[in-house]
Amino acid sequence: MANNINIGVIGYGYWGPNLVRNFAEIPGAKVTSISDFKPELLAKAQSRYPSVKVTTDSSSLLKDPTIDAIAIATPVSTHFDLALAALKAGKHVLVEKPMTTTSEQAMRLIEEAEKRNLVLMVDHTFVYTGAVRKMHDLIATKQLGDIYYYDSVRVNLGLFQHDVNVIWDLAVHDLSIMNYVLPSQPYAVSATGISHVAGEPENIAYLSLFFENNLIAHIHVNWLAPVKVRRTLIGGSQRMIVYDDLEPSEKVKIYDKGITLNGNSESVYQMLIGYRTGDMWSPKLDMTEALRAEGLHFIDCITKGDRPITDGEAGLRIVRILEAATQSMKQQGRLIELNLAEVAA
Amino acid sequence: MANNINIGVIGYGYWGPNLVRNFAEIPGAKVTSISDFKPELLAKAQSRYPSVKVTTDSSSLLKDPTIDAIAIATPVSTHFDLALAALKAGKHVLVEKPMTTTSEQAMRLIEEAEKRNLVLMVDHTFVYTGAVRKMHDLIATKQLGDIYYYDSVRVNLGLFQHDVNVIWDLAVHDLSIMNYVLPSQPYAVSATGISHVAGEPENIAYLSLFFENNLIAHIHVNWLAPVKVRRTLIGGSQRMIVYDDLEPSEKVKIYDKGITLNGNSESVYQMLIGYRTGDMWSPKLDMTEALRAEGLHFIDCITKGDRPITDGEAGLRIVRILEAATQSMKQQGRLIELNLAEVAA
Amino acid sequence: MANNINIGVIGYGYWGPNLVRNFAEIPGAKVTSISDFKPELLAKAQSRYPSVKVTTDSSSLLKDPTIDAIAIATPVSTHFDLALAALKAGKHVLVEKPMTTTSEQAMRLIEEAEKRNLVLMVDHTFVYTGAVRKMHDLIATKQLGDIYYYDSVRVNLGLFQHDVNVIWDLAVHDLSIMNYVLPSQPYAVSATGISHVAGEPENIAYLSLFFENNLIAHIHVNWLAPVKVRRTLIGGSQRMIVYDDLEPSEKVKIYDKGITLNGNSESVYQMLIGYRTGDMWSPKLDMTEALRAEGLHFIDCITKGDRPITDGEAGLRIVRILEAATQSMKQQGRLIELNLAEVAA
Amino acid sequence: MANNINIGVIGYGYWGPNLVRNFAEIPGAKVTSISDFKPELLAKAQSRYPSVKVTTDSSSLLKDPTIDAIAIATPVSTHFDLALAALKAGKHVLVEKPMTTTSEQAMRLIEEAEKRNLVLMVDHTFVYTGAVRKMHDLIATKQLGDIYYYDSVRVNLGLFQHDVNVIWDLAVHDLSIMNYVLPSQPYAVSATGISHVAGEPENIAYLSLFFENNLIAHIHVNWLAPVKVRRTLIGGSQRMIVYDDLEPSEKVKIYDKGITLNGNSESVYQMLIGYRTGDMWSPKLDMTEALRAEGLHFIDCITKGDRPITDGEAGLRIVRILEAATQSMKQQGRLIELNLAEVAA
Repeated sequence: MANNINIGVIGYGYWGPNLVRNFAEIPGAKVTSISDFKPELLAKAQSRYPSVKVTTDSSSLLKDPTIDAIAIATPVSTHFDLALAALKAGKHVLVEKPMTTTSEQAMRLIEEAEKRNLVLMVDHTFVYTGAVRKMHDLIATKQLGDIYYYDSVRVNLGLFQHDVNVIWDLAVHDLSIMNYVLPSQPYAVSATGISHVAGEPENIAYLSLFFENNLIAHIHVNWLAPVKVRRTLIGGSQRMIVYDDLEPSEKVKIYDKGITLNGNSESVYQMLIGYRTGDMWSPKLDMTEALRAEGLHFIDCITKGDRPITDGEAGLRIVRILEAATQSMKQQGRLIELNLAEVAA
Repeated sequence: MANNINIGVIGYGYWGPNLVRNFAEIPGAKVTSISDFKPELLAKAQSRYPSVKVTTDSSSLLKDPTIDAIAIATPVSTHFDLALAALKAGKHVLVEKPMTTTSEQAMRLIEEAEKRNLVLMVDHTFVYTGAVRKMHDLIATKQLGDIYYYDSVRVNLGLFQHDVNVIWDLAVHDLSIMNYVLPSQPYAVSATGISHVAGEPENIAYLSLFFENNLIAHIHVNWLAPVKVRRTLIGGSQRMIVYDDLEPSEKVKIYDKGITLNGNSESVYQMLIGYRTGDMWSPKLDMTEALRAEGLHFIDCITKGDRPITDGEAGLRIVRILEAATQSMKQQGRLIELNLAEVAA
Repeated sequence: MANNINIGVIGYGYWGPNLVRNFAEIPGAKVTSISDFKPELLAKAQSRYPSVKVTTDSSSLLKDPTIDAIAIATPVSTHFDLALAALKAGKHVLVEKPMTTTSEQAMRLIEEAEKRNLVLMVDHTFVYTGAVRKMHDLIATKQLGDIYYYDSVRVNLGLFQHDVNVIWDLAVHDLSIMNYVLPSQPYAVSATGISHVAGEPENIAYLSLFFENNLIAHIHVNWLAPVKVRRTLIGGSQRMIVYDDLEPSEKVKIYDKGITLNGNSESVYQMLIGYRTGDMWSPKLDMTEALRAEGLHFIDCITKGDRPITDGEAGLRIVRILEAATQSMKQQGRLIELNLAEVAA
Repeated sequence: MANNINIGVIGYGYWGPNLVRNFAEIPGAKVTSISDFKPELLAKAQSRYPSVKVTTDSSSLLKDPTIDAIAIATPVSTHFDLALAALKAGKHVLVEKPMTTTSEQAMRLIEEAEKRNLVLMVDHTFVYTGAVRKMHDLIATKQLGDIYYYDSVRVNLGLFQHDVNVIWDLAVHDLSIMNYVLPSQPYAVSATGISHVAGEPENIAYLSLFFENNLIAHIHVNWLAPVKVRRTLIGGSQRMIVYDDLEPSEKVKIYDKGITLNGNSESVYQMLIGYRTGDMWSPKLDMTEALRAEGLHFIDCITKGDRPITDGEAGLRIVRILEAATQSMKQQGRLIELNLAEVAA
């Protein structure tokens, strides 16, 4: 493998330009080709990056032997075919979230990448922010004690999408963060939600996720809210977190609050529950752009043969939850088992 | 009936003193007796209101022919017996929320009050705030257009209760507000939640309520949150409301935001959804203490023979939802039909 | 001196009832008499505290040999005469802020108290809050480094007063806090402000206070603001504080932010100024009601013969600044020397 | 004059790229040349705008007969020489704020532009935001009644500048907004402030500005604050405004609050002051980027021969206040007359 990882980017719409801009500034990476089926977007790409090859034919990137890795930033319905073709062409793959439209597809991609010993990474961008990494570290080092709940709200007057519902558009962020910071996986989901525009997918949804050990998670997403909210509460037996992504600097606040139990083995009725409130603390966060940290990690995994933090299995788990939540939502909250251990096995 | 309504108050713990203080200042009302089984609370009542009779025997209030009405501010498990006895003794009744522990009990009280032509009112206090009345009026006069969703969060590091779960303690407020401001009743509920203290009732819960006509409601309640939140979003086709009860003055904000549809009967794929954002407006609210407004309304209903806004049926509807939500929560979100029309018939 | 300190309270209008309520619950203190010239206020006091003597004649409290201390909660114009008479009658004195209307009066009271070895304390209530004591401790233990500035805003749509301007009404709070938490005293003041109602005192004012050692303080007070603000910034070379008294719990936030200097003795042009940002921390505060802590301190000082934190000198310093600021304001910001060392000598 | 206005931009450091980017997208304008003395900045400009001429020699832009207008985005100490040379070369001029370092220089530029009938515009960017234009319109149409005060805070942990103090760096924004929205000009200023780094200019400052008719303005600027604040209060006899530039959408809030006077001609002591609180209203704002609106206005003024809103006189008024405030600050608040009518005559 050459010193430089040559990258081809498929899709130059909303997210593609961010991928290109970040890879352009990462040492050891080089964007050599960009494809999109809209010529006007390619013209824009060409004027900004005069040395990059542009094409409307994405298959030409897969055939190019100088390209080591493919980044896919196209609509979700095309992820599977493009990623599979790229893997079959021997390219490492970074694919936008959600990874695929079904868990079967996700499993097929994982299998293909394993067989060929290629890096398969899903662009769960938030996982690479300083805020989420800090929360992961706090939980991993047991500073919150046992985790009691994970509650997230992500609402605003957002763009309605015609091809996916609000869960696939917004909850995917919360699920990827949750999957990274929590120490265990949910075993079932119950979801509710409806559409307010006839013929369109659901624009408001609520997901409850069940875990072993008294942990519950809940996600509220809404494309039709008057105000923007991006707030997650994480409750633990020792400490609790408020993560507000709209705060300009103090995004993560850690509260030394909780309950204390003065139990009595003879009778739960004699259980005394006390309240504990202490200091609040907001740690300084690494403000590196998430996509830069993610790009560096992708290059690093390719170079060293490491497994990415947001690997195919992480992508699969999220897709499986999205799938099950959509199914539950159609049945007004019916509990759907996730079987994440099985699907990921 | 005498010019003055003489009131006996049963229960002088947390809420009773507020009832007494407000009735003491309402023209046409007079608190003549207070009962509580704790003598030290009666001593406190006596020192503040030297002319009031105090007793540990609540039945003596029911036997007192000079008492016109009984206000009950005791634990919920005692509401039914006390209210039924008071009605049977010919007294008008104001009972704390939740009205009873079962919907059967609530129906029995309604029946008894109707038979005896007595006022039966439930103390859904928030319904009498300026903020909630303003929201009711805005919705009733169609200023929000069609109602799309009602989403409420009521969380904080609150007192754990041993006898009722967090739904009966906190969601009762949201349900009574929702019941008052929305134009229709839910037909089913799906709820999730768990307990984090062995042997104690659930301390975190999520309720989804289903209505006809594409309306959904959701309530999040939590006794174990690091921060206090009291926020409701109400989305409509024309306007949307943010109601934040922690704001000192601008509790209700009305956003002239929404979506516009440029539909096409031939194909939903040609549906264009546009976004509309306009002014925000926060109306001046009546700042009268809710309990004073409620007390005046109670006296008014007794005097004029009117039906209270928060009558027995309103109380019954809330109890029925609490009951069903608790049942659903035990079964991890299973949909429970409410049959509110039947129970209230 | 008896075991109990018997207290007479003069003035039962706005603040008097708070004094009485707190002293009533302090071990070792007993309110035995209350005077006010309005009989209806005395009736209210009597009904709440049946065992207290009430009178419209304040001089009868001074003559009462069983009374050890007098608390004065009357308009500022009456403070001097009442406090002087109380001291001459051999009573310890707690007087509302501002202590007097002139610094000469304040000096006279200090002299009288010293001569008679009596406790003279000024009710600078905020000094006894957990928030202000925490800030005092942080500064006293050098955790902020050198103090650079003290900036306070106290504005709202407040009651216009006819007898004193907004400086005497609102800035007195900021000055008493500043006087307690800062390590040194200002040497001069420049103030601006105007009245918006003909014939009434100034309702908006800005004070700049000059200290040695590059420390500056500024206070903005306004009776005619659309929103309520109670916010103080304290900048230090090592850390900075934001104190927001309207925050329900996190009133004091400490920012590990500042500048770092990489100086060069040869040339200021080569001075490099770097920026430092670190964690933010909000310590748990003692939530004891300030007036209770203050009352305990008053009783303690009487019992042990100690000097109060907010002694006559502290009161005098504040009055001197108020006096000078009012003078400066009349002359559109003219610098007025304070000579605090002299006046307090 | 050609259909297109050809623009040369001098200075491609912090602000220049924003000017170029906006002019590049304005119909009727074309950036043809860019100069900067740093070749690496020119290289960046060239790669983004391949067709633009770049040079380290700014005088070559002045000599270029195809250039109609010069935009100057260099340090303030160079503004006068560059602008004068550009005017003498017959070019229209858009110059960064502050316009010049002295009011004499500003007057000289105005004179030169008038003589040659050229547009001289100062880049007071905030004047072209939707928020500031809305406030201007509300005040101009008397919706606030008489204006009582203008109070602005602009603080954060900002870049220390070595050549100008914090007034010239930050207060210039507030003064240009104030100058645009208020109906009259101040006649005198009193300012205080200090430097916390030896040998460096003042990093914290407070300005009080005096107007006729009981109007006062105050500006607080600080490079060394732990939090960022951008908040202006404008008080009027009928309504009041809170303008918070950090709010993502509701930047301008209008409060229907104030006082009501029930005067009595015989005695001010009988003046009764009542309080009035009504609705709050936050109007939708034009979200066009200010620099785009400003660029369009510049082109329009050139094309039609109109006088810009932020003309040389506006620039001169701000420079005169900055000058006087710096002088006052050196003398600890001494009142300095502004004579704006004279300087602008």
